[in-house]
Amino acid sequence: MDHATIALIERRISANVFDTSHTLADDEIEELVRLATRAPSAYNLQNWRFIAVRAAASKARLRSLAYGQAKVSDAAVTFIICGQLPDYTTLSQRLQPFVDAGHMPAATASGWQEDARTRYADPQKARDEAVRSATLGAATLIYAAEAKGLVSSPMIGFDAEGVALQFRLERNEVPVMLVPVGRPAPGNWPQKPRRPLSEVLHLS
Amino acid sequence: MDHATIALIERRISANVFDTSHTLADDEIEELVRLATRAPSAYNLQNWRFIAVRAAASKARLRSLAYGQAKVSDAAVTFIICGQLPDYTTLSQRLQPFVDAGHMPAATASGWQEDARTRYADPQKARDEAVRSATLGAATLIYAAEAKGLVSSPMIGFDAEGVALQFRLERNEVPVMLVPVGRPAPGNWPQKPRRPLSEVLHLS
Repeated sequence: MDHATIALIERRISANVFDTSHTLADDEIEELVRLATRAPSAYNLQNWRFIAVRAAASKARLRSLAYGQAKVSDAAVTFIICGQLPDYTTLSQRLQPFVDAGHMPAATASGWQEDARTRYADPQKARDEAVRSATLGAATLIYAAEAKGLVSSPMIGFDAEGVALQFRLERNEVPVMLVPVGRPAPGNWPQKPRRPLSEVLHLS
Repeated sequence: MDHATIALIERRISANVFDTSHTLADDEIEELVRLATRAPSAYNLQNWRFIAVRAAASKARLRSLAYGQAKVSDAAVTFIICGQLPDYTTLSQRLQPFVDAGHMPAATASGWQEDARTRYADPQKARDEAVRSATLGAATLIYAAEAKGLVSSPMIGFDAEGVALQFRLERNEVPVMLVPVGRPAPGNWPQKPRRPLSEVLHLS
């Protein structure tokens, strides 16, 4: 039993107030994203991209696209977490090292690619996957940040089209979440109340 | 620095092979879901529901809806993680304990509800939120299970309409992921290879 992780999950809050004097070095940002990409994804697609907004001018642009919310520029870094509409043709490359290492038969990798081709021909399924994979990455980033003594704040309140344009997202990329990460300043809310378990769990 | 959580994120695998002799008691399942619902959600909507499939007959039905994949019935429990299309009218109730405790001004709660009303009038935004919230809950469940010495396996390969019908999902519910949870048996793959950081991270 890993009590530290249980306690971390229980105590995590979404922060609104950040220490504006705190910065993160690029290698610390890279380490957070390296951990975030340990997240699972369908077929191991890894259909995500992380834009780490940490320069003052970039933060100011992003803050303006997030209706002026201060945490976007107050935090050491704000990640734009993008999901990519799955491109099944990338799969053989992404699974090849696993095949080469002798873990996965080549036929399994081909089968996954064919399965992905069929599935994501449906645009709603492709979009769902972009949102799902990016969110798995975002959640892992949030817990990695918490483990490093930082706080975070998943945000959906931003102009997605403006972000796509100003931060040069590719046509197949969806900005799924903003996640400011940094040190907290005084004044944050405690964890918000949760619904009773009886409302959200059914045993079958 | 919480080294245990970092190590947990780094070592997690998606399991395919489970110990079929292992079961989880209902209170252990409840504890996993209690932890999963510590996840963040937009406006604290908590627009998720967890169906814990642990009885043999229920597992058999779900396995058949997941193209016969053995892990669905081999694992101690398989969660159907549902996202709910957000209903803005629920927000005042979900935020009320926070207002009553003096943390959030009543006007802020009303503002959030009005903001949610406008946002989710767009059906694509409502669906995105169902997928995003359920995935945040699923990721937190996955890390909670790992912290308890268990393994998990997020799955998207299932008949969503069949699951909705046979497990009596509400009309506003989307089955976003299946997550078998249990003890591993020998024969699982190691963690699959990850894309180089240079492909997935941009510093701005």
